[in-house]
Amino acid sequence: MPLPKSFIDLVNNLTILPGVGEKTAERFVYALYEKDYDEVENLAESLKEFKNTIRNCTICGCLSDEDICDVCQDNTRDKETICIVEDSKNVFFIEKTKKYNGYYHVLNGLISPIDGINPEDLNIASLVNERLDNVKEIILAINPSIEGEVTSLYIQKILEKKNIKISRLSYGIPMGGDIEYLDPLMISKALDDRKVIS
Amino acid sequence: MPLPKSFIDLVNNLTILPGVGEKTAERFVYALYEKDYDEVENLAESLKEFKNTIRNCTICGCLSDEDICDVCQDNTRDKETICIVEDSKNVFFIEKTKKYNGYYHVLNGLISPIDGINPEDLNIASLVNERLDNVKEIILAINPSIEGEVTSLYIQKILEKKNIKISRLSYGIPMGGDIEYLDPLMISKALDDRKVIS
Repeated sequence: MPLPKSFIDLVNNLTILPGVGEKTAERFVYALYEKDYDEVENLAESLKEFKNTIRNCTICGCLSDEDICDVCQDNTRDKETICIVEDSKNVFFIEKTKKYNGYYHVLNGLISPIDGINPEDLNIASLVNERLDNVKEIILAINPSIEGEVTSLYIQKILEKKNIKISRLSYGIPMGGDIEYLDPLMISKALDDRKVIS
Repeated sequence: MPLPKSFIDLVNNLTILPGVGEKTAERFVYALYEKDYDEVENLAESLKEFKNTIRNCTICGCLSDEDICDVCQDNTRDKETICIVEDSKNVFFIEKTKKYNGYYHVLNGLISPIDGINPEDLNIASLVNERLDNVKEIILAINPSIEGEVTSLYIQKILEKKNIKISRLSYGIPMGGDIEYLDPLMISKALDDRKVIS
């Protein structure tokens, strides 16, 4: 007997989740069978709601439910500082430290010629063209990987003629590590000990 | 900045999946953000379709898209043999071996007084009352755990006055193991070497 079609369909659709193969998906489906209809319907609805609602903030590029994210809408923050990060994960993670009060700019990627990702593919132009008028410091909070270093250097270069201090997180990031796996204290220290590089 | 509401809602709803905590759910959500809308909508629809469609076969109790499952609808199978299993997973797993050609009866649980699961809570009555007329052999394919042994003994007892051979899988199941994690060859051997116990 083959598995019921609704079962197989759900298994196949669940394997779009990262790290979820057929065996794990089957385990999920048996568990979902035991759940109340409402719980599963809520999951289904929130999947669609998420895809219908979530977008990139038109100013900083961070994930948001609205065209302009909460940070960019907040006029009480330090307008002279922009922290540049690879993706929205890093914004939410740095926000958890409650240590940083400036704005963000999310690149949504890193320069990686081997993957065909060039500077034009990243959210850099809007930073340079529209956001630098009152800015006194740019903090580069980018992972210290090869792609991260290339991207940092690129941004450093296009900003070097402007009168802006550029710093980068320095203390506590292990080379090859990933910002989101550090604990908030370490991120705080890295914000304290940021090093002026240009 | 708090995470976007649609993001948090989806994270919370994803944690109903077994073994999925907040961190894993967040990883799922970032991945779902990168997926096409259609893929995520398909997942959402198949979740609802699954809960709307899936039910227990009214004859054997196995998961099915219809009131009577494919096995019970199949008149070419051996009507003299019923294989009793704990849950539907085991049916689909034994079917994969293509070794067994009788029918099934799914208990949907095992007797476990400590968890308040008594024989009345299991799908046993319909087996005894409605399914034994032409049956010559009952195969107990139940995990060799304490609950499994208690359940096997209980079924053995209520069937002992009927003229039915009762056997159980014997070869290849390690004590404390789980039927679904054995490979099909082992299950085949266990079917070959089943041992008459009553």
